[in-house]
Amino acid sequence: MFSNLKRLLIGRPLKSAELGEQKLTKTKALAILSSDALSSVAYGPEQILIVLITVGIAAFWYSIPIGIGVLVLLIALILSYRQIIYAYPHGGGAYVVSKENLGKIPGLVAGGSLLVDYILTVAVSVSAGTDAITSAFPSLHAYTVPIAVVFVVLITLLNLRGVTESASILAYPVYLFVLALFILIGAGLYKIATGGIPADMHAPVGTPVAGISLFLLLRAFASGSSALTGVEAISNAIPNFKEPAPRNAAKTLLAMGGLLAVLFSGIVYLAYYYGVTPKEEVTVVSQIAETTFGRNFLYFFIQGTTALILILAANTGYSAFPLLAVNLAKDRFIPRMFMVRGDRLGYSNGIIMLGVLSIVLIVAFKGKTEHLIPLYAVGVFIPFTLSQTGMILKWLREKPAGWAGKLAANALGALISLTVTVMFFLTKFAQVWPVLVFLPLILYLFHRINKHFVAVGEQLRLTTCEPPVPIEGNVIVLPVAGITHVVEHSVNYAKSLKADQIIAVYIPFEREEEAVFEEKWKRWMPDVRLVTLHSPYRSIIQPLMKFIDTVERKARENHYQVTVIIPQFIPKKGWHNFLHNQTSFVIRATLLYRKDVIVTTVPYHLKK
Amino acid sequence: MFSNLKRLLIGRPLKSAELGEQKLTKTKALAILSSDALSSVAYGPEQILIVLITVGIAAFWYSIPIGIGVLVLLIALILSYRQIIYAYPHGGGAYVVSKENLGKIPGLVAGGSLLVDYILTVAVSVSAGTDAITSAFPSLHAYTVPIAVVFVVLITLLNLRGVTESASILAYPVYLFVLALFILIGAGLYKIATGGIPADMHAPVGTPVAGISLFLLLRAFASGSSALTGVEAISNAIPNFKEPAPRNAAKTLLAMGGLLAVLFSGIVYLAYYYGVTPKEEVTVVSQIAETTFGRNFLYFFIQGTTALILILAANTGYSAFPLLAVNLAKDRFIPRMFMVRGDRLGYSNGIIMLGVLSIVLIVAFKGKTEHLIPLYAVGVFIPFTLSQTGMILKWLREKPAGWAGKLAANALGALISLTVTVMFFLTKFAQVWPVLVFLPLILYLFHRINKHFVAVGEQLRLTTCEPPVPIEGNVIVLPVAGITHVVEHSVNYAKSLKADQIIAVYIPFEREEEAVFEEKWKRWMPDVRLVTLHSPYRSIIQPLMKFIDTVERKARENHYQVTVIIPQFIPKKGWHNFLHNQTSFVIRATLLYRKDVIVTTVPYHLKK
Repeated sequence: MFSNLKRLLIGRPLKSAELGEQKLTKTKALAILSSDALSSVAYGPEQILIVLITVGIAAFWYSIPIGIGVLVLLIALILSYRQIIYAYPHGGGAYVVSKENLGKIPGLVAGGSLLVDYILTVAVSVSAGTDAITSAFPSLHAYTVPIAVVFVVLITLLNLRGVTESASILAYPVYLFVLALFILIGAGLYKIATGGIPADMHAPVGTPVAGISLFLLLRAFASGSSALTGVEAISNAIPNFKEPAPRNAAKTLLAMGGLLAVLFSGIVYLAYYYGVTPKEEVTVVSQIAETTFGRNFLYFFIQGTTALILILAANTGYSAFPLLAVNLAKDRFIPRMFMVRGDRLGYSNGIIMLGVLSIVLIVAFKGKTEHLIPLYAVGVFIPFTLSQTGMILKWLREKPAGWAGKLAANALGALISLTVTVMFFLTKFAQVWPVLVFLPLILYLFHRINKHFVAVGEQLRLTTCEPPVPIEGNVIVLPVAGITHVVEHSVNYAKSLKADQIIAVYIPFEREEEAVFEEKWKRWMPDVRLVTLHSPYRSIIQPLMKFIDTVERKARENHYQVTVIIPQFIPKKGWHNFLHNQTSFVIRATLLYRKDVIVTTVPYHLKK
Repeated sequence: MFSNLKRLLIGRPLKSAELGEQKLTKTKALAILSSDALSSVAYGPEQILIVLITVGIAAFWYSIPIGIGVLVLLIALILSYRQIIYAYPHGGGAYVVSKENLGKIPGLVAGGSLLVDYILTVAVSVSAGTDAITSAFPSLHAYTVPIAVVFVVLITLLNLRGVTESASILAYPVYLFVLALFILIGAGLYKIATGGIPADMHAPVGTPVAGISLFLLLRAFASGSSALTGVEAISNAIPNFKEPAPRNAAKTLLAMGGLLAVLFSGIVYLAYYYGVTPKEEVTVVSQIAETTFGRNFLYFFIQGTTALILILAANTGYSAFPLLAVNLAKDRFIPRMFMVRGDRLGYSNGIIMLGVLSIVLIVAFKGKTEHLIPLYAVGVFIPFTLSQTGMILKWLREKPAGWAGKLAANALGALISLTVTVMFFLTKFAQVWPVLVFLPLILYLFHRINKHFVAVGEQLRLTTCEPPVPIEGNVIVLPVAGITHVVEHSVNYAKSLKADQIIAVYIPFEREEEAVFEEKWKRWMPDVRLVTLHSPYRSIIQPLMKFIDTVERKARENHYQVTVIIPQFIPKKGWHNFLHNQTSFVIRATLLYRKDVIVTTVPYHLKK
């Protein structure tokens, strides 16, 4: 039944050989990997204005130079990631780049930040999208958390079905959103050109403003750079592209950068020219759209596609998280289950883990995005800084043709990213301090897991250890609870193994039972030795373990192997298990974890 | 650590032989088994007045004849249960009596009612006691549920320590309560005799009252009979008494009946003479105490011991529930785990189950007793009726010396009990209907569990089945995931068993792996046959199960037994298990539940 439900939800299993068919074309990749970055223009420009308004409306003209600064950062990031794509065609992004050029620890800092950040991507994007919906339909406001959870579940299912199918579904909304903003910006510029907007709505660029400071401007710049979250997604996902993957990925990255630059500049310019003031209940994009069109069909089209792309931005996390997890698992910093491909060839465990953790975040923060955004931005800019610093070292070391230009691009990117990161810690410490707690914790966990896997590998490898102890004979211990078919079957099996010694063990709680059972046993199975262990404290485990210790000590001297045969009857129906004292199960678990004996279970299947 | 905590809370384990020392003397038994019955006088008389006041204060004189009716019922019940004690010295009460004389179904109706009723005893008594405390200290009112839960946990721990120790702790409050009420009744009667109470506070007995009806009087009688809940406890607990158990139990029963009769009559009479009107916020006993003494030390002494005995009344449930559960488990109507004695020789599973379920009831009903009391009373009077009807049949069948007198007592008891039960259904249907839902449900559960145990017994018994299939040889299947120490150890073990055939199985996901591994294996272990099963859908379980089916079919033809040896490495620390894909565990579980093969686990203990 479970497998039918699974098939209905995520489709029939795919053969490993069908993997090639799931690769992405450029058009689909642009949709699937850039929704996070593109959707950021829905809130990025607004973040700049929110900081500037603390000084006054007159300061709004600073959004133009700040916007240009963000564009410079965007260009630097795009150029830098373009070089990363060619330098690391197997993907891995910040984690791989930092690890190879800066060393293990910086690599893990980048990897750990990104891992958490993808969870935040999902939580933030879905919450923000849900907020957009509940703002449009206020009666749904009480259900913010359940609605967001349903969206996460739906996106998780889409991703479990497989990456191409979800791309088909996701391509339309992303392109519709781009179309909607192009219409908005075009109509806005036309209106300005034809004098439809009064020219006195905004202070001219260069107007002196009292109270402005470099600190405030940097803070506004840091806030605005949250519009760039998501640009690293393509460089992580190169293996998902059709061949030639690096070339296709680089082209897609440039296309995304171009779109992002146009949309961001357009929104920043219109907001400045229209003199839009950020309000708590109406977004900047909504105000621009309303001023341009009034509340007609086009307004709702823009609002609707914005809400949709915010929710779908979560999908970027679903593309990037499992691939990063595979890289970390390959290096044995997280469990290997993240390397297993599911029925539909996606890395199901990573996808499910991401879905579950983002639901936890949404529920814990009650769907309130504003507390998560600063954490999210810091989590993005730490790996940005690390990977670009890594690229600087790479160029200095390798010095390929034209390395000076490449170095300049990466150095600029690294510098601006570092500034943004530092700005976040200086100006928003109250919101971003958890990074300083969780990042070391994650690093410690990576370290412990890695240590374990390395130790396991060493112990299992044949070449590095002493030769095995030979097995020169077998001793079988057979705990029995009575004289039944289950026991009969077990004794017959023990005999068939031609062991050197078979010892049946009976553990009575009362002295009187002892003699009675010994007598019965002698009549029934005279050729198998029976040992009775009276247990005054009514425990089966304790006397049995003590006895097995003794047997094992003696056996080891002769290089004999001890096997414990546990008879177990298997009820026909699952609920019947609740009716029996699971003694077999407890004995087996205790033996496996505590003793160096082999444990054999002889099942006896009940037929009714 | 867990075992240290356990020892601290419930004491050192006791040997089975120490059981005799835990038996009860009469004095302790009276305390431990009668707190439920005696505490009922704190609310029984009040229930009568609550019904009568619906007609008017003038009707209060009817509490005297109704009280006499309750006393008659009490005498009938005491005499009846005294006969039951001698007739059934091994205990079991209503369940055993009904089962033996009326048949299986009535027995199970009685048993099921009582089982649920003991849970209600705990929930009702503790909630009522907590209410008494929170009435005295209104600031605690918001914490009613947590306080009640803490009390249940404490009583559960006391009972897990063992029955005698809890009796020592419980004896004082019960006797203090009896002493307190004796002082109250004595002082009240003295005050009446010396003219301290005006004689015109009450209408004389026989005053005609408008609006009185037989229905109302029967309802008042039914309500008042809730003061008799708990009188059956002694007859269920005979095995807990010191020898001669039946004689001691009968004497204890008479003592309890006498005390209950005196206290009940005293409270009813004083309430009538003082003209006490039932109020929502002050209990009848509290009003009597205040009128007699004013709010001095004696008043608080009476209130305090009343609160205490109500909470301790829950203990009756803890004495009776596990013993009834043992009787039901012996007859295989509930799981056998209820027959297991814990470290301190109490039936721990029954005690814990009772604690947990009553906490569930308290939390579900938010500690409000008033909704539970009618259910509780019905649950008591159904088995009362059944067991006394059973006794009637017994006397008619056996006709021992003096049977006519015994018959009369039981017939009277059965008739009054039946009337009370019917009255509850007629007059309080809105509160007692759940009995009609849950009782059939419990009976169905008893039936299904019994059917299962009977079937298991038949299948395991050696005499009733065909002779076992002989094992003429062994085939060993050994799934391997690589060439490691774990696999080496498993292969060596398989060889040591001198099986007729050993087949190693490797399941690659990619075609390329197949040849590589076969080559490696041939070089490493040329004398063990390797089968590779390419799994295009990346499942280990499916191809393995299919292969084992094939092997098993062939083996069965030759009377060969198939054993699957599963290598498993056991990490040093528990949390390491989360890091590995628990494939061994899944293979083992699937094999045990689905296939008729023997499953052997070869543990390989990692040292770091």
